Amino acid sequence: MPNRIILHEDARSGNCYKIRLTAALVGQAIERRGYDIMRGDTRTPEFLATVNANGRIPVLQIGDWFLPESNAACYWLGEGSSLIPTSRNCRADMLHWMFWEQYNHEPNVATMRFWRVFKGIDQLAPAQQAAIPGKMLAGEAALALMDQRLADREWLVSDHVSLADICLYPYTHVAGEGGFALADYPAVQRWIKRIEKLPGYLPMSA
Amino acid sequence: MPNRIILHEDARSGNCYKIRLTAALVGQAIERRGYDIMRGDTRTPEFLATVNANGRIPVLQIGDWFLPESNAACYWLGEGSSLIPTSRNCRADMLHWMFWEQYNHEPNVATMRFWRVFKGIDQLAPAQQAAIPGKMLAGEAALALMDQRLADREWLVSDHVSLADICLYPYTHVAGEGGFALADYPAVQRWIKRIEKLPGYLPMSA
Repeated sequence: MPNRIILHEDARSGNCYKIRLTAALVGQAIERRGYDIMRGDTRTPEFLATVNANGRIPVLQIGDWFLPESNAACYWLGEGSSLIPTSRNCRADMLHWMFWEQYNHEPNVATMRFWRVFKGIDQLAPAQQAAIPGKMLAGEAALALMDQRLADREWLVSDHVSLADICLYPYTHVAGEGGFALADYPAVQRWIKRIEKLPGYLPMSA
Repeated sequence: MPNRIILHEDARSGNCYKIRLTAALVGQAIERRGYDIMRGDTRTPEFLATVNANGRIPVLQIGDWFLPESNAACYWLGEGSSLIPTSRNCRADMLHWMFWEQYNHEPNVATMRFWRVFKGIDQLAPAQQAAIPGKMLAGEAALALMDQRLADREWLVSDHVSLADICLYPYTHVAGEGGFALADYPAVQRWIKRIEKLPGYLPMSA
């Protein structure tokens, strides 16, 4: 019997949605188990001892093995599919955009959305308030870099959709909720429409 | 004739050292080209147009192709070597630790070192000053998570050294320069000594 695959998630998180979208695109059925990160569901002693000692979702459970980090889970799901290029250079270039997403894009574009929509700007600690201008500038720079990259190409890597696109789409397509103006990035807007036409595409609300 | 491989780097950066260390362990000769990030060498129009539109080092140049993001460059160098596990689960687990490094470890442990040693605490902007307590707590949590993981095992993934270890070693072994007390993490200290005994090991200063 094949392993059960369970996504431990908060459905509002783009990092969790990445994994659902990858699974849908490769045709892998997954079960979903929901947590409320605002309520501290992922910081309980039980969660830390069994699901993720780092106290975060998403975690992809494969049988009795728990795999944290959204982009690693997407990589596991994408293995053997056309979402991971077979050429050494393209595979490394895909990973380049995936590491860039976690370092330059998510901490700015996703955090601003989290603070505005879920936490509330007036609930932020002083150090978080102080970080807002820097995060807005860095988030705009990240979106501008994507727009420059996509100006004359359909996908971030090679001429085929890859995990680089799938991992960058979730927080990019809701960047407006973080206070970013997607209208300023026309190539990104065209790329968003391209992803939403992929066979098997699943919206964030699904 | 094989491609020339050139590392565009600032030798003080742990992200650049990762790549030199990976290249040394797999026996790949690389050329080095130095930049001073404090002087803005990576923000010049020429650098942005040719080496990296994101204005950062390291970048690994392979022939006339430029690959940014340290962990992607390590992956490219490690392909086909024992530093990348052949099992699907172990490969994804290795990537889990590499993404975790860029999200949970580097922005705290490496940034505190950069601020203390290279920029100077008294030169920080107010928003950076405000971020220090959070970065110290998050950096300590990252080192504690590594210590927990390594308490009863030699390497982060499987029973063999992998890129997960090589990518986490550079900033961990100089965490003291960021104000973190490595003495509090005995399993991490044993793991550091283990890495330093690997055949082909290269110190940061080399």
